[in-house]
Amino acid sequence: MQRPLEKIRVLDFTRVLAGPYCTMMLADMGAEVIKIEKPGHGDDTRHFGPFQNEESGYFIYLNRGKKSMALDLKNPHAIEAIKELVKQSDVVVENFRPGVMKKLGLDYESLKECNPGIIYASISGFGQYGPYSQRPAYDLVAQAMGGMTSITGHPENPPTRSGASLGDMSAALYAAYGIMAALFHRERTGEGQLIDVAMVDSIFALLESNVMRYTVDQIVPERIGSRHPISSPFDIFKAKDGFVVIAVANDSLFNKLAAVMQQPELAEDPRFNTDPLRTKNETELKAIIETWLNSYSVEEAVKLVSEAGVPCSPILTIEDICEDEHTNAREMLIEVEHPVAGPIKIPGNPVKLSRTPAVIKEASPSLGEHTEAILKDVLKWESARLQALEGQKV
Amino acid sequence: MQRPLEKIRVLDFTRVLAGPYCTMMLADMGAEVIKIEKPGHGDDTRHFGPFQNEESGYFIYLNRGKKSMALDLKNPHAIEAIKELVKQSDVVVENFRPGVMKKLGLDYESLKECNPGIIYASISGFGQYGPYSQRPAYDLVAQAMGGMTSITGHPENPPTRSGASLGDMSAALYAAYGIMAALFHRERTGEGQLIDVAMVDSIFALLESNVMRYTVDQIVPERIGSRHPISSPFDIFKAKDGFVVIAVANDSLFNKLAAVMQQPELAEDPRFNTDPLRTKNETELKAIIETWLNSYSVEEAVKLVSEAGVPCSPILTIEDICEDEHTNAREMLIEVEHPVAGPIKIPGNPVKLSRTPAVIKEASPSLGEHTEAILKDVLKWESARLQALEGQKV
Repeated sequence: MQRPLEKIRVLDFTRVLAGPYCTMMLADMGAEVIKIEKPGHGDDTRHFGPFQNEESGYFIYLNRGKKSMALDLKNPHAIEAIKELVKQSDVVVENFRPGVMKKLGLDYESLKECNPGIIYASISGFGQYGPYSQRPAYDLVAQAMGGMTSITGHPENPPTRSGASLGDMSAALYAAYGIMAALFHRERTGEGQLIDVAMVDSIFALLESNVMRYTVDQIVPERIGSRHPISSPFDIFKAKDGFVVIAVANDSLFNKLAAVMQQPELAEDPRFNTDPLRTKNETELKAIIETWLNSYSVEEAVKLVSEAGVPCSPILTIEDICEDEHTNAREMLIEVEHPVAGPIKIPGNPVKLSRTPAVIKEASPSLGEHTEAILKDVLKWESARLQALEGQKV
Repeated sequence: MQRPLEKIRVLDFTRVLAGPYCTMMLADMGAEVIKIEKPGHGDDTRHFGPFQNEESGYFIYLNRGKKSMALDLKNPHAIEAIKELVKQSDVVVENFRPGVMKKLGLDYESLKECNPGIIYASISGFGQYGPYSQRPAYDLVAQAMGGMTSITGHPENPPTRSGASLGDMSAALYAAYGIMAALFHRERTGEGQLIDVAMVDSIFALLESNVMRYTVDQIVPERIGSRHPISSPFDIFKAKDGFVVIAVANDSLFNKLAAVMQQPELAEDPRFNTDPLRTKNETELKAIIETWLNSYSVEEAVKLVSEAGVPCSPILTIEDICEDEHTNAREMLIEVEHPVAGPIKIPGNPVKLSRTPAVIKEASPSLGEHTEAILKDVLKWESARLQALEGQKV
């Protein structure tokens, strides 16, 4: 089956997480992604756990379906090879600190001379311009500087990082959307362009209405745990052996909850008989619900409450969700075959396209697996030029 | 300046957050987005705060640059109008519960008969198929069922929701990327297709290497607060008047930190002289650092530690980041003029395209503002047919 980005070639200078996840989304859609890696060492994540037969699961997941060229960016012959490749490519993606690609002579201004239609995406912590653009980019810093950390966690605890690297992942997603928009524009006009995406901007862009509460009402949103800002009981509650989500946003649902708790009087209680009152007296209400839940396991509670017509769910662990039948039905965990690691399960693509689905067949490449083939077959280099590259360790 | 999606028309049946954010990303890129709203009431978020001159800031932000048609989907003349519009449109986006559009006769199978090239994107809580597809879609549930909640928060506290609606926002982002891929495919082949994106799949897709730890090593990642799983001190620390991020991932940075703390002996301390040892003895080390930080304000600490060459940052509140010079330089907060609300500040687009930037000029439409103009100018309806629609309240 055809995938949407077939015949699109991406030169991929990215490392670690944000950049590789972005180019993974292009590879999933059928682009030929050529990953340029440091000879001998490769992407740092080749050395990150977890390992299966000494191959990194982290690397295999993020670099599935890509090709690898080992090229020493300090070797002028390697730079020549890259510039020749740019002439035959559509997209360049990089996530070095701003300025590094320029020092290497591989910035947008240099590469568009080789190919004016090239689309060049840079992902960084703070962006290519702005007062903080030279600051180092860790996800923890991006979440903190982007405003997310200040509103995550319980009020009595410190501000809290979200459990996954949202700075990297969201920047990758915004960049993929930007690259797609630029590809569409180029298809219609032939024009290329530069795309600049910052992790900290991406985190800020995820804050949704929290920003409007400040710009309109000068309210500074704070940490409120897992509860809903204006509805109650809409929170995470403790049952006998774990936690459950109960989501009640109106009186009718609250009546149903009170009934299943066999405390129908709660629905008439002057502390709890409207949504604003329930929110005002949320602490008392939570204590009553948790006292009741104390007699039930999570499984029992979710069954009882859901059957009463009240939205309710368990909190799945990573194990739970990986083993869940819905995850399986949605192909959100798929198996690829790696020549060394063997069969390995990696996350699928959440975008289900009916005609051109993201078919993920191949695992990640070994370091430099395609160096020679690309030099010979795409660039038509002959043995003398190949030898000139030999000075580098591959 | 031209934007990439100019001349692309989107029929937008979405409500609340995930769908409207997706079509907002299409509108930012220049698409003509026609929002179909319930006469009299409109999108629920028109009634959500914060309000400025009785207009919802929430709605203005998410629906900037769109048009509004008020159409009663139970009126057969409205359905006729929609089917005629589909013939002249490129994309349909909806986020009803699976099955609702089919009941209305507006599912993909029905609409592709009007226009075989139509791209039809559905965003939902659990997707269009799979055992849970009929479950209600709240962000709290999507985060909990997608695995994010189980790994967010401090180990001694309950699992914790991320402070922003990541289920909605990530599903919107994945859908925008999918729509862009489908538009690119259609540009080359003329073929349309159906796109199915679930909030719970999108959350799962953000978990990055947490999934690999389970599939490779059967480790179930748990809540570890804000600290780094394998490096230390890489965490959020308490200073005199707030919290700071300090990110040390190797011995050389730790030497610098120990020096600025005027406790150079820490770098030689057998509890702390390697990264694995620092992680093993993280609690003790954190106490030492926080004792030192207790003499400094956040501002002083960030200045001292950063100047010593150690990555360090404050934790910005929503107010801090909205007032920050970097946010301003990056145009991440922009002002639009709403005819009733007046000037209002809303978040910008984090994707900075050099040639076809996301120029955001217009605020949101009033309910039904474009109904008549579109019926007359696009569909060429004459007065008799317009009158047939009059039975509906607008």
